[in-house]
Amino acid sequence: MEQLVTVREIFRDRDKYLNTKIKVGGWVRNNRASKNFGFLVLHDGTFFDTLQIVYGAELDNFSGLSSLNIGTAVIVEGTLVPTPEAKQPFEIQAESVVVEGESTPDYPLQKKRHTVEFLRTIQHLRPRTNLFQATYRVRSLCAYAIHKFFQENDFVYVHTPLITSSDAEGAGEMFQVTTLDLNNIPKNEDGSVDFSQDFFKKPTNLTVSGQLYGETYAQAFRKIYTFGPTFRAENSNTTRHAAEFWMIEPEIAFADLQDDMDCAEAMLKYIIRYVLENAPEEMNFFNQFVDKGLLDRLNHVMNSDFGRVTYTEAIKLLEEHNDEFEYKVSWGCDLQTEHERYLTEQVFKKPIFVTDYPKDIKAFYMKLNDDGKTVAAADCLVPGIGEIIGGSQREEDYDKLKQRMEELGMDMSQYDFYLDLRKFGTTRHAGFGLGFERCVMYLTGVSNIRDVLPFPRTVNHCDL
Amino acid sequence: MEQLVTVREIFRDRDKYLNTKIKVGGWVRNNRASKNFGFLVLHDGTFFDTLQIVYGAELDNFSGLSSLNIGTAVIVEGTLVPTPEAKQPFEIQAESVVVEGESTPDYPLQKKRHTVEFLRTIQHLRPRTNLFQATYRVRSLCAYAIHKFFQENDFVYVHTPLITSSDAEGAGEMFQVTTLDLNNIPKNEDGSVDFSQDFFKKPTNLTVSGQLYGETYAQAFRKIYTFGPTFRAENSNTTRHAAEFWMIEPEIAFADLQDDMDCAEAMLKYIIRYVLENAPEEMNFFNQFVDKGLLDRLNHVMNSDFGRVTYTEAIKLLEEHNDEFEYKVSWGCDLQTEHERYLTEQVFKKPIFVTDYPKDIKAFYMKLNDDGKTVAAADCLVPGIGEIIGGSQREEDYDKLKQRMEELGMDMSQYDFYLDLRKFGTTRHAGFGLGFERCVMYLTGVSNIRDVLPFPRTVNHCDL
Repeated sequence: MEQLVTVREIFRDRDKYLNTKIKVGGWVRNNRASKNFGFLVLHDGTFFDTLQIVYGAELDNFSGLSSLNIGTAVIVEGTLVPTPEAKQPFEIQAESVVVEGESTPDYPLQKKRHTVEFLRTIQHLRPRTNLFQATYRVRSLCAYAIHKFFQENDFVYVHTPLITSSDAEGAGEMFQVTTLDLNNIPKNEDGSVDFSQDFFKKPTNLTVSGQLYGETYAQAFRKIYTFGPTFRAENSNTTRHAAEFWMIEPEIAFADLQDDMDCAEAMLKYIIRYVLENAPEEMNFFNQFVDKGLLDRLNHVMNSDFGRVTYTEAIKLLEEHNDEFEYKVSWGCDLQTEHERYLTEQVFKKPIFVTDYPKDIKAFYMKLNDDGKTVAAADCLVPGIGEIIGGSQREEDYDKLKQRMEELGMDMSQYDFYLDLRKFGTTRHAGFGLGFERCVMYLTGVSNIRDVLPFPRTVNHCDL
Repeated sequence: MEQLVTVREIFRDRDKYLNTKIKVGGWVRNNRASKNFGFLVLHDGTFFDTLQIVYGAELDNFSGLSSLNIGTAVIVEGTLVPTPEAKQPFEIQAESVVVEGESTPDYPLQKKRHTVEFLRTIQHLRPRTNLFQATYRVRSLCAYAIHKFFQENDFVYVHTPLITSSDAEGAGEMFQVTTLDLNNIPKNEDGSVDFSQDFFKKPTNLTVSGQLYGETYAQAFRKIYTFGPTFRAENSNTTRHAAEFWMIEPEIAFADLQDDMDCAEAMLKYIIRYVLENAPEEMNFFNQFVDKGLLDRLNHVMNSDFGRVTYTEAIKLLEEHNDEFEYKVSWGCDLQTEHERYLTEQVFKKPIFVTDYPKDIKAFYMKLNDDGKTVAAADCLVPGIGEIIGGSQREEDYDKLKQRMEELGMDMSQYDFYLDLRKFGTTRHAGFGLGFERCVMYLTGVSNIRDVLPFPRTVNHCDL
């Protein structure tokens, strides 16, 4: 069909379009008419701000237009004129307004404030509201910024598999994937499930991390990253947990923990800068209506060095404030969100890396430090969120890695490929995982993970 | 650790590094030594070509170096000197070679030609070979080119869900996702599975398409795209089918089938150009060793308009050659790969769109043409592959869509959200699906989908 000018093009390149005749298409956000003329507030989905359309009684379909419902799709032709006296910078004086698709009076998004709880019940319509327009545009830009950062730094993007037959790091509950008839599970003679009849002839799950696969590619390409969906079947009904979410997992050969932290810090700053530059209207909206300190905080982060503190030092700092915590800390304990936030918000007042955690609270693959007690891990904590990135240098020594896996009673038969990496040209290497939704929450100030995922999957909820 | 110069930096910015002392790290692809000096062929994963290292008997560890196994990881310091008489443009004269990680004589990737079949059995090591280095770098660049194309054209990237409770277009077999204990499936009184005990309290599957979700976001953002994993539990053991693969599904509001084809054509040309520009070494390799006509074909495609032919015309063209086909064609039949390839390779000799297919062989959501028999579908066929893109204008009329769904006996209760889009400001809109692996196969000439997926999942195979 005939090309329509977008509202984004009009706002970003206004001199090109002012005082010319243009054609736009979009959806009616508001409509008010008097006897002789009317105003449509048009949103076309390409830009956060709306475009005002003035239509007059000289139009053939004036009376129809004056009763258009909110949500109606229209195509408007007219002249874009400056409106220096008005709130909006310009408007279209319409010569024709053609209805593309009608709406109804019971359209759920009427001109009033809706609660996020209500909007969660209409996941297919909520991206048409300001809050969710802004959120999902920032989500898209954030995803692209991540790709751009890694590609510009010569990382290779690797698609690690979603369906796996191993349980990765033994992290939490997994979803099973099967084509067996649940009404009639085939059994072996001994009563166990006959997986030879399943699609892959073995039990399979949805992945909880692509890291181990990522490491194999880092040993081939030196610098790689993954960016894909990840799953946890945890019964966690919180504002921070979803059963299906996206993760970014870079992995770098010839790199140690310092390099890893440098990469994570550069990446976060790059993302913030990209989003601030490419979605100023959206970010102002968040700053005004969702989280008043947001822009100050992000600008501060972008321009300051992240703090670095060892776990052992962090515990000392926190112990002085144990009376303020629900969970008291002592060396050896895992940090809770309250501790993480205290460190980053109260003590350091900026993002920090906490490094060198006790080995017993971290994963098997992390490199053992010389003290024999701690591992070369680094978690990045940010104000308002707590942990946003978890990283580590990996154990590159075959014997140490194998010993640790045996200590933990792991099923070694699943990890031959992983141990092979330590046999054939092993290198110092490191990587981290960024939870993509946490990153979007951090950038927008939106506080519930259900509102940054387009169609969230949480315990008991797979709604659309 | 200390920053290492990459082989990519050296090749791309050689004047900066020639005749200077640099430090590089990588893996030994070959090693041959005489009494007084030796040569290492070093590959560092950042660049397709290797770097030659010369080491002399004056080095302390000369005798150790001269017996280094293939696959060993080393860090080399020395001067990069031009070698105008030699095959390679320069080499490093080493002042030190430090072993980062040893390899063993039984390292599987010895200096000889390996079959792809053998390499499929070592999925964790095969990216270290030329063929798979080239393939997965091009895969990464191709993915990025797709993001870049859509982002530069103001499309919003949407993450549609992987776990779903609907069966999308009723397309093929689906994988079930469950946390129920397969050894002991809970049952209702009537003997059916008690899904109230499952994670989502209902049966769930892995998605076969994000399109219906994508449409909801196109009606909010006007132009969106998805790029994510998709699943088919089809028992198809072919070179073109995988159980887990990646799809790109753009969706555009205020667009018809012509716009859809224009977008698909522009996207494919953009991808080809990007990959040719950013991986010339890899593309030359494919052209030389995998598919001799590749570069000619891609350059031709980039510079020619895609053909467009209706299904009805295509059937007439094919019927004249029915004696050459295993499956004979007649109006109403679905096109097989042999027919698709005949059209694009023999008749048009370039990519073509076949449009306006009979409604009975296409999905319910496609827009019915005025003839009442065909739908506004467009499949893009390319030489060497056949169908690479399937697109259509969507039925935007509430009544026609509902009628079609009822005709097909679909479970309407699952599609309220989808019908809502036609009730509240419906627009002409269109979209398509690009199978990402087919795209990579097309770009590289690699003919088996198992070799373009890092860790392929196919019937009976979930190996690593």
